[in-house]
Amino acid sequence: MIIIKGGITSVKGIAALGKFIGIKKNRKDFAVIFSSRVGAAAGVFTKNKVKGAPIIVNKNHLKDGKAQAIVVNSGISNVCTGKKGIEDAYLMAELAAKELGVKKEDVLVASTGLIGAYLPMGKIRNGMKGIKRKMKKNPDGAAEAILTTDKVKKQIAVRIGGVTIGAIAKGSGMIHPNMATMLAFIATDADIGPKKLKRMLSISVNKSFNIVSVDNDTSTSDMALIIANGLAGKADEDKFQKALDFVCIDLAKKIARDGEGATKLIEVFVKNAPNENAAKKIAKSVIGSSLVKCAVFGNDPNWGRIMCAAGYSGASIKPEKMDIYFGEEKIVEKGAAKNFDYKRIKDIMSKEELRITIDLNDGRHNAAAYGCDLTCDYVKINAKYRT
Amino acid sequence: MIIIKGGITSVKGIAALGKFIGIKKNRKDFAVIFSSRVGAAAGVFTKNKVKGAPIIVNKNHLKDGKAQAIVVNSGISNVCTGKKGIEDAYLMAELAAKELGVKKEDVLVASTGLIGAYLPMGKIRNGMKGIKRKMKKNPDGAAEAILTTDKVKKQIAVRIGGVTIGAIAKGSGMIHPNMATMLAFIATDADIGPKKLKRMLSISVNKSFNIVSVDNDTSTSDMALIIANGLAGKADEDKFQKALDFVCIDLAKKIARDGEGATKLIEVFVKNAPNENAAKKIAKSVIGSSLVKCAVFGNDPNWGRIMCAAGYSGASIKPEKMDIYFGEEKIVEKGAAKNFDYKRIKDIMSKEELRITIDLNDGRHNAAAYGCDLTCDYVKINAKYRT
Repeated sequence: MIIIKGGITSVKGIAALGKFIGIKKNRKDFAVIFSSRVGAAAGVFTKNKVKGAPIIVNKNHLKDGKAQAIVVNSGISNVCTGKKGIEDAYLMAELAAKELGVKKEDVLVASTGLIGAYLPMGKIRNGMKGIKRKMKKNPDGAAEAILTTDKVKKQIAVRIGGVTIGAIAKGSGMIHPNMATMLAFIATDADIGPKKLKRMLSISVNKSFNIVSVDNDTSTSDMALIIANGLAGKADEDKFQKALDFVCIDLAKKIARDGEGATKLIEVFVKNAPNENAAKKIAKSVIGSSLVKCAVFGNDPNWGRIMCAAGYSGASIKPEKMDIYFGEEKIVEKGAAKNFDYKRIKDIMSKEELRITIDLNDGRHNAAAYGCDLTCDYVKINAKYRT
Repeated sequence: MIIIKGGITSVKGIAALGKFIGIKKNRKDFAVIFSSRVGAAAGVFTKNKVKGAPIIVNKNHLKDGKAQAIVVNSGISNVCTGKKGIEDAYLMAELAAKELGVKKEDVLVASTGLIGAYLPMGKIRNGMKGIKRKMKKNPDGAAEAILTTDKVKKQIAVRIGGVTIGAIAKGSGMIHPNMATMLAFIATDADIGPKKLKRMLSISVNKSFNIVSVDNDTSTSDMALIIANGLAGKADEDKFQKALDFVCIDLAKKIARDGEGATKLIEVFVKNAPNENAAKKIAKSVIGSSLVKCAVFGNDPNWGRIMCAAGYSGASIKPEKMDIYFGEEKIVEKGAAKNFDYKRIKDIMSKEELRITIDLNDGRHNAAAYGCDLTCDYVKINAKYRT
């Protein structure tokens, strides 16, 4: 597998566009991803009991395992908007289908932004005009138009043999198991059937987006969609799965790094746990602790908070066996402070990536979770998001 | 029941002191609560798998259901300190017992502050000297000495007939199910046996401290202790339970209001749920949402975040039936925005207390949870707590 320059439009037969249609104040807010032919398609969606209208539409449109286009707006999320919201989401797919000359059931939709407001359907209708003509082999516009409070575009493309996988994503909010909102759109020219595609996507999502965003705790709009148009023929299944894992993990890390107000990417790696479930619970609990996040922001090696978060994770732990490392530096040995070089730890913590390793010394199972620090800017962004 | 001026020393036979012994930089950091005679005693402790050394000592000392004194230091929490930490905690009880002339098994201990550092036993030993002589009928010193980042003392005293209940407490951290650290020390002159006392304390704690601090998610040092010395004779059981509930709820609210960096007390009241468990889950989920907390800080009626947090609570909800009120003002009806008076809502949100009512219209069960807003000051405090 090699990483190539580009994004979702590096895939054969995939074009995209991003434009401003007047939902946000002055930034691109409308994206289209289009496959020159109908492909197999699959999605993984939020488990939140409150579901955005686009999710209801997509589940319906994916029943036949096929899709040809994805239409996305940012600025308003079309969540908690009742019947009208669902009608709007269906209409959005229908309007796009007409412009693109495809079946409306082959259009998937996504909306991200403020919850509880209706989509401005007039603007969306106008925005649709001429989209097919404007579609390009340039992923940047689409990658930009799906963002909300993200600071940077998130995209990647990889090649395995003759087959390409390209993807764009957005994060938002602090990347915290309680509130991560993410969209990921993946395209490939590999020839894969819908059932297999869905299974492979689920496997990759569990290793990536689901470790920045826990099952029951996902936002109302989370989704990962994939279209496989088959233009490049069959792919080796194992290699394809690994490449898809890589793409999803790469995007998940990019989302974590660009959390609202974040200054750092944090990876929590739990190793030598008695079982995988325990390792996951501890990793998620530590990455989700506001106190740990604040300490990392302040370059404060407050390992007690890590022990505490491991302790309330619900997993059974033996504190007296635990070692904790910041980077390569061991700061806790058998549950108690090691006499570490404080200046050295400060240096490690000052970098843009921090890896916290928790060695439970109590088994052979490992798990990782990704997140970011909690900063004043996060509070500022979220105290005034709506108004 | 009447509320009386005072605190824990309003109880017959209870004296207390608070003093500076050099653990913190320049604030009182050592407290003693002393009963003139041995009383029945009970405790409720954190369910965190990592437990502070004082909790291990207290569980042991409470096996006979009796206690006569509580000794507390703030500044260092004696958590994650291994065998030496436990020895230190036992020694702290022993030193106090010697000074006070009581059995060491009748002394309970508590420590709060930084995790992972050893207690400065020299300072504690020196600080003990002459404590019995300095003990007073003045609760303020003790209420002050147990604080860490709290801004205000938390105490209350109530009388039911001839019986008095007095109590002091400390909070810390943002009051969030994931990290509330709290200590509550309660004394009464009612004559109640240890088993009944423990049952009554558990009932009150479930209605108060446990709704600012969820079971599996409590800090390593949380505890509520009660001593009943019997000096005022028997109390009506029902009335006593209600009074104890009131004392604990009052302290829980005071803790929530004084969360780190907090500007507001938030009460989330969930009503008409299909069962109590669902009501509790939703209340705790909403009060624990950083996005809701930030919105309240910014006086932003971002009700979509409330719906979202209810949706990921794990309880089954019917969004299309939900109403949401800020104060008395309805802002969501049947899961969609009501055309509310924005200025009026801003006024309601600008006050120091905000009650958010979520009416599920789906049953007859209610639950409340208390918390506070999330502010830049919270981040500042916790980014630099250790250093």
